[in-house]
Amino acid sequence: MMRALFFDNDLRYRTDYPVPEPRENEALIRVTCAGICNTDLEIVKGYMNSKGVPGHEFVGVVERCWNQALEGKRVVGEINLSCRNCPLCKGGLRNHCPNRSVLGILGKDGAFADYVTLPIENLHLVPDSVPDEEAVFVEPLAAAFEILEQVKIGAGDRVCILGDGNLGLLAAQVVSLTGCALVVGGGHKEKLSILERRGIETILSSDITEREFDCVIDCTGSPSGVESAMKLVRPKGTIVLKTTVAKRDNIDMNVIVIDEITLVGSRCGPFEPAIQALKVKTVDVLPLISRTFPLSEGVEAFNFASGKGILKVLLKA
Amino acid sequence: MMRALFFDNDLRYRTDYPVPEPRENEALIRVTCAGICNTDLEIVKGYMNSKGVPGHEFVGVVERCWNQALEGKRVVGEINLSCRNCPLCKGGLRNHCPNRSVLGILGKDGAFADYVTLPIENLHLVPDSVPDEEAVFVEPLAAAFEILEQVKIGAGDRVCILGDGNLGLLAAQVVSLTGCALVVGGGHKEKLSILERRGIETILSSDITEREFDCVIDCTGSPSGVESAMKLVRPKGTIVLKTTVAKRDNIDMNVIVIDEITLVGSRCGPFEPAIQALKVKTVDVLPLISRTFPLSEGVEAFNFASGKGILKVLLKA
Repeated sequence: MMRALFFDNDLRYRTDYPVPEPRENEALIRVTCAGICNTDLEIVKGYMNSKGVPGHEFVGVVERCWNQALEGKRVVGEINLSCRNCPLCKGGLRNHCPNRSVLGILGKDGAFADYVTLPIENLHLVPDSVPDEEAVFVEPLAAAFEILEQVKIGAGDRVCILGDGNLGLLAAQVVSLTGCALVVGGGHKEKLSILERRGIETILSSDITEREFDCVIDCTGSPSGVESAMKLVRPKGTIVLKTTVAKRDNIDMNVIVIDEITLVGSRCGPFEPAIQALKVKTVDVLPLISRTFPLSEGVEAFNFASGKGILKVLLKA
Repeated sequence: MMRALFFDNDLRYRTDYPVPEPRENEALIRVTCAGICNTDLEIVKGYMNSKGVPGHEFVGVVERCWNQALEGKRVVGEINLSCRNCPLCKGGLRNHCPNRSVLGILGKDGAFADYVTLPIENLHLVPDSVPDEEAVFVEPLAAAFEILEQVKIGAGDRVCILGDGNLGLLAAQVVSLTGCALVVGGGHKEKLSILERRGIETILSSDITEREFDCVIDCTGSPSGVESAMKLVRPKGTIVLKTTVAKRDNIDMNVIVIDEITLVGSRCGPFEPAIQALKVKTVDVLPLISRTFPLSEGVEAFNFASGKGILKVLLKA
């Protein structure tokens, strides 16, 4: 038996949840720290009809593994569990396998528990110099690096990031590494000040009016995010959609045609550049931590995380 | 005075319309042949609140021009009249100038008349070997070539074009030049047979089920075109939107994020490759001509053009 947060219509803290049994090629990982993501808050509101143990941002120690060399190692894990047999898997698009389960989101118990299992191929070693409370950001930070995988952003490009939540603040730090002319629009001065302190230009969203950006990245998680982005991007520019939204405002697709705008959906990203950025400290995630709760107070942690102005909430074993 | 089709709430044939006066740097062009586009059919239904003389697909002879060397020359013309002073014009995006007028569509009388004026910089000479009834396709053919300017399509890519109207049939011929694995989905066997005769694979739209295409190009002009495209494109694939639609079905933008789809709006394109394709006969537009009317029967021509199964309808002086 182990401790776990369990969601089925409501979220409960349980102490009687079965320890997962690792299959062949899987590792059993003792979770040391996990982060509550906006997707988790959506899940407990009913998103994706998800049931089970949520949690997909974590760091832990391999407790038992078919590959014994991994035992005792500190790891983070990619969240998509693919079938390895379909055309997409064979074509190198494993994160998009139609038969995939997704850790803590879709058909696979997640990390808000004492233990979690994952295929060995999903695991990445964490450098000793990166503490747990930073390593737990690797998954969302990787999602931020996905932007650079998909869109060519270079010095001189005028880029606007909308949203000063966790993803916006991570994306801002990652995109600023390109040397582009970046401005981050948000609604919370105190969150934006985290970026200002790192020399990244910010502005209150309501104050951006010029339609002049080569690229606008919507990290708002808001129903009106795409529409705002369309008002800011130049003709022939690019909009990156970084967040899913339960109910989104309709957008005028004719504007996309007439202004020849490119819209790019963006989801999970590469772990290695994220781990590297934490190791060499080009990205600073610590100011994003609003509060840390013990796993046993996980339900309270969810309530706290959904409060106004809260950034990252962590759960520690 | 000249003859012209004039739209203001209804479309009328007039013989008392004033001949337009070319400004400095403009040419007065005697229209010899013009094509009715789907946009024209939308305009007479109220699209863009357009008023005046419609018509933006044309070929003609320069009658009077500041640059006398052009007089007597056969020309086609780009339809966007830009201000040349704004940041977009100066940045090379003249087709997207926010102060632009658009021939026959927005603030500028078009080509369904004896005469039309255009800036000299908008004109392209037509090779002698390309007859009027082919040259009149340069503008929509250029719009098809815009796809190749925006999206990298190469041999081996699996591409699906949706729509067997004029734009679909032109786009199909252009995209097939890349050597990609192309299939064109439409609802009309007799239209698709035009492509079959050129060795391009076609299928009834209702028979396409596999979600396997690297790129899907929506040329349907239908409210459900984008949604259909989203069902056919693979994760991380690209959808090109080639048509504006008065009222479009809502699409689930979360699918775009989760499947990391890229959506590219595409409008006007480069004239030179289109002229070249007609010159070297890599594209055949003649089978697309459903019927030719004299300008004096323009109102009837519009009625005919909006009929079922009709492709291109031409107006001749």
